[in-house]
Amino acid sequence: MPVPPPNLYPPFNIVRLSHVELQVTDLAWARAFYADLLGLQVTHEVPGALYLRAMEERGHHCLILRQAAQAGVGHLGFKVWDEGDLGKLADWFRARDLPAEWVDRPFMGRVLAVRDPWGVPLEFYARMERLPAIHQHYALYKGVKPLRIDHFNLFSSDVDGAVSFYTDMGFRLTEYTADEATGRSWAAWMHRKGGVHDIAFTNGTGPRLHHTAFWVPTPLNIIDLLDVMATSGYLDCIERGPGRHGISNAFFLYVRDRDGHRTELYCSDYQTVDPDLEPIRWDLKDPQRQTLWGAPAPRSWFEQGACFAGATPRESDLKATPIVAP
Amino acid sequence: MPVPPPNLYPPFNIVRLSHVELQVTDLAWARAFYADLLGLQVTHEVPGALYLRAMEERGHHCLILRQAAQAGVGHLGFKVWDEGDLGKLADWFRARDLPAEWVDRPFMGRVLAVRDPWGVPLEFYARMERLPAIHQHYALYKGVKPLRIDHFNLFSSDVDGAVSFYTDMGFRLTEYTADEATGRSWAAWMHRKGGVHDIAFTNGTGPRLHHTAFWVPTPLNIIDLLDVMATSGYLDCIERGPGRHGISNAFFLYVRDRDGHRTELYCSDYQTVDPDLEPIRWDLKDPQRQTLWGAPAPRSWFEQGACFAGATPRESDLKATPIVAP
Amino acid sequence: MPVPPPNLYPPFNIVRLSHVELQVTDLAWARAFYADLLGLQVTHEVPGALYLRAMEERGHHCLILRQAAQAGVGHLGFKVWDEGDLGKLADWFRARDLPAEWVDRPFMGRVLAVRDPWGVPLEFYARMERLPAIHQHYALYKGVKPLRIDHFNLFSSDVDGAVSFYTDMGFRLTEYTADEATGRSWAAWMHRKGGVHDIAFTNGTGPRLHHTAFWVPTPLNIIDLLDVMATSGYLDCIERGPGRHGISNAFFLYVRDRDGHRTELYCSDYQTVDPDLEPIRWDLKDPQRQTLWGAPAPRSWFEQGACFAGATPRESDLKATPIVAP
Amino acid sequence: MPVPPPNLYPPFNIVRLSHVELQVTDLAWARAFYADLLGLQVTHEVPGALYLRAMEERGHHCLILRQAAQAGVGHLGFKVWDEGDLGKLADWFRARDLPAEWVDRPFMGRVLAVRDPWGVPLEFYARMERLPAIHQHYALYKGVKPLRIDHFNLFSSDVDGAVSFYTDMGFRLTEYTADEATGRSWAAWMHRKGGVHDIAFTNGTGPRLHHTAFWVPTPLNIIDLLDVMATSGYLDCIERGPGRHGISNAFFLYVRDRDGHRTELYCSDYQTVDPDLEPIRWDLKDPQRQTLWGAPAPRSWFEQGACFAGATPRESDLKATPIVAP
Repeated sequence: MPVPPPNLYPPFNIVRLSHVELQVTDLAWARAFYADLLGLQVTHEVPGALYLRAMEERGHHCLILRQAAQAGVGHLGFKVWDEGDLGKLADWFRARDLPAEWVDRPFMGRVLAVRDPWGVPLEFYARMERLPAIHQHYALYKGVKPLRIDHFNLFSSDVDGAVSFYTDMGFRLTEYTADEATGRSWAAWMHRKGGVHDIAFTNGTGPRLHHTAFWVPTPLNIIDLLDVMATSGYLDCIERGPGRHGISNAFFLYVRDRDGHRTELYCSDYQTVDPDLEPIRWDLKDPQRQTLWGAPAPRSWFEQGACFAGATPRESDLKATPIVAP
Repeated sequence: MPVPPPNLYPPFNIVRLSHVELQVTDLAWARAFYADLLGLQVTHEVPGALYLRAMEERGHHCLILRQAAQAGVGHLGFKVWDEGDLGKLADWFRARDLPAEWVDRPFMGRVLAVRDPWGVPLEFYARMERLPAIHQHYALYKGVKPLRIDHFNLFSSDVDGAVSFYTDMGFRLTEYTADEATGRSWAAWMHRKGGVHDIAFTNGTGPRLHHTAFWVPTPLNIIDLLDVMATSGYLDCIERGPGRHGISNAFFLYVRDRDGHRTELYCSDYQTVDPDLEPIRWDLKDPQRQTLWGAPAPRSWFEQGACFAGATPRESDLKATPIVAP
Repeated sequence: MPVPPPNLYPPFNIVRLSHVELQVTDLAWARAFYADLLGLQVTHEVPGALYLRAMEERGHHCLILRQAAQAGVGHLGFKVWDEGDLGKLADWFRARDLPAEWVDRPFMGRVLAVRDPWGVPLEFYARMERLPAIHQHYALYKGVKPLRIDHFNLFSSDVDGAVSFYTDMGFRLTEYTADEATGRSWAAWMHRKGGVHDIAFTNGTGPRLHHTAFWVPTPLNIIDLLDVMATSGYLDCIERGPGRHGISNAFFLYVRDRDGHRTELYCSDYQTVDPDLEPIRWDLKDPQRQTLWGAPAPRSWFEQGACFAGATPRESDLKATPIVAP
Repeated sequence: MPVPPPNLYPPFNIVRLSHVELQVTDLAWARAFYADLLGLQVTHEVPGALYLRAMEERGHHCLILRQAAQAGVGHLGFKVWDEGDLGKLADWFRARDLPAEWVDRPFMGRVLAVRDPWGVPLEFYARMERLPAIHQHYALYKGVKPLRIDHFNLFSSDVDGAVSFYTDMGFRLTEYTADEATGRSWAAWMHRKGGVHDIAFTNGTGPRLHHTAFWVPTPLNIIDLLDVMATSGYLDCIERGPGRHGISNAFFLYVRDRDGHRTELYCSDYQTVDPDLEPIRWDLKDPQRQTLWGAPAPRSWFEQGACFAGATPRESDLKATPIVAP
């Protein structure tokens, strides 16, 4: 995969991923999972929906839980630099014959709702209501002590296409997995905010959301969470980990809620602000790219994901047999 | 399993497990593994043998590595309170028609070498050469920062018999796994020094040494070791973990040397000095007894162990199918 | 200070320190401090008194908080091996013309209440009500996650005398501070249960209780506690630390309740079960014995302590000028 | 202090702080301190100078140690987005009648050397030689495991002036200390790369370099460093900490080399990429801004700093009496 030239830039500035709307079938259960168990702070509650933020965030929410008849993902939210960027983004999507419309969202005012070429619903905003800082209200910390939303990871039926499209939007590649046989990309990690990724794409039936990740202080917080989950009725929600990823170098744990939505608890990746940062290439046959320490992931981790509202997943024509744990 | 009455005591006082002699086929490789990678301190070196201690130990050694034509275990060492205890122990073994003889060992003088009823070679001593304290020489710490030898774990073809015999020697049961169907014990953890165990027995072809454990400061030291092993040629030596045991509550990692000798890095079990401490019973069908977080152990962990010099393992007649990872 | 011969033993077996009764002037405030902030579990509550235990303890309580008109210490509790030991202890104290009487205590039945030669009220028992294990009920952990009571530290006007008396009771010296000029001991650490101490004595106006310590999992739990205390109204309760002691090698923090009772949060000292363990000698002029990293303790730490009910402190004739922080 | 409008931008893009040249009087000692003790990796060595990088950096160096007759600071280095930015920066400085010249630097080619209005020597470059990634070569990690250079902190005789000047260069304010009495700023933290700061200014005789900071993985690495320093001859190099800053929320330790150059080991501040991030205001009289847990800093920390080559410090006319430890 050629390194995208670092100085070709679109006319708008996407600052970072911001929030996700998860559709859940049991809002009370989801509240217990995300707020009480994981430790996100509830910032707003209306019948049928819950807004939450992580401990160092000052934006109003990074997670919306919405009661629904079936599980799904409403949209992925991104913050842009200023209002002017929104108009330029609208033009940019329309110029590509992609849907782009203005919607009103609570706590944000005018929001640009678009679809990427595979149908992923993206929402862009410039200003979200700001809340008082609570990162030094240590008595409020609980669960895994989530500090901030870190990234989205999507199954994609066309990883090379996604990399090209998101590169054009200003996302920069940090690491990727190459399929030797075909010369195509198996997976790619792309960032805006200076870490390993704001969004990643993995080959598979897509588009589907593989997981949303939250940054936590240290590996010990993840170990604490495991101990609590294992002994308070959440054992079956532990899917994979703890471990160290080869890709991103992060310490990780994957957990899943009752609707199958996957959350990664994540820490200790690295800074990527250099424009000449060389993307790191991994071979699809190198098992350490997934877990540096060698343990394989379970089959569910390779296969299961959540559908986006209004988008129909397609199978990828790129096949590989993952090394799985039973 | 009935709790052994706490006030029936043998006439001698075994203080703690002390050391193990491992026979290795490549002493230079073993030195790199135990000293450079794991971080034990070499305290003495002669052609064909190496003596090592952990960071807070003042006794001369807790591990002897001995060059041999094939892998095996020379003996398991235990420290007794004083010289008088050695004579009483000799009488006690002879009264049971078990081998007991006096041998001279470097750094210890007179040592009592015996065999338990299954042939496990045990050596008892009262005084070992003492070395200057290095636990505050922090510049010497390396690897996983091993602080002290913690316990032995043995495959046994007769766990109930072993518990009875070692209880008579003053070992106290802390946790055990019961086989519902037969009413027999599947595994048992027994201590002298006030932690969960100095020695444990697990049902299987035995006697064989399953592993030797070293206490380390925190789970983060184990994570550091994993990172180093995974990236400096020792990936294949990682066998199981990291995880939290249900039994003992300890955070653990199992690694194996090139001869198959298994080492557990271990921390955070609990204090067991109360004479009325109630042993904790686990059901053989409860997978959390092995890993609180649910991940199964690999098959090798259930099956492979090291033979003791001069002892012939026998199959156990108690069978169960472990839940294994591939 | 000569090492006490390890094989001279009294006819009874004191297993470990067990509990302390603190008299507090505001029980509701004390409950918030010890239970909600520090994380001890309330096991029983009656008007005027509260019983608490730490997370891995199965005995009913390690701390009794008792409402009183003024702050003080009711007694220090110790557990002995069996009932027979209690009678031998009663004889032993009476043979020394020291007070010894039988009292009834909730959750313990018959308890031996004595005074040491300086008037410290000690209580010995063999069996305390046992509670179900909660050390794997991780959802109950809070605050600094206290695992068990670790030790008492007392101001003593006669440290050499105290060492001699407690040695006769079977306590074993692990570390001590010597005053070069006089040849007398400035401070001494003595254990029964296999750590650096169950009880320590420091020169000063005594007897007074300097602090009670609880063992916590890792230094990060202490850092978490500091963050919470500093941002939820307990800033003034932080007295000293965090730091590493030279003596004991433990990572520590000292906090004080509103009545001035001092609690040490403590982890990572070392195992001391060897009968031939050589006590470590520290020089009174070595500032690293107190804080390995060099920072001095505040004056309050050197001077303030809690009186024992019915005991009148006397000044020590051994003087030294501590190095203090302002 | 008014929040600088987030959308006024200079025509160039400063990416991040990059490196510092420290002039040292004993290069061999400095090598032992920065490479062996702290754990920076030596990437190049010539007579009289040493180049080092931190573990996750791919740029050639973040620290140049240069043998000199007396201690001082050569320059502060910053990376810009591309070559075009350098010319625009040269114009920008010249338009302000400030020195700006092109110099050649090893591993960087053409570099723009300027002085800010107070004489601080700044050097800007677009491309520095890139080295292979070593962040997953875990066997190379040592000392405090420094991951990357994090920020510079300078004494300034005109903090308000500095904030204004660096804001014009695109630096964004994150936190500041206000002097109630005068309405002036006592200190300010400003960033480019998305953390709390790339550069900070504190009122005092300036310009002088107060410290350079390196990001480390967790607080435990800092505790490990303290243990090593305290027991291997570096006790006197520990100046302040460990502690938690109120400002930045970071866990910190300050150490000083033999020439008085101060290094901060630093972790766990927060992400600041939002353009509408509200700067946090602290009151000069709030002692928790310096140490959340309340412990004061020593006098040396408030007073001592390193002079920049060719810049003469001036006293500030803004006075306050810091709360100091002795």
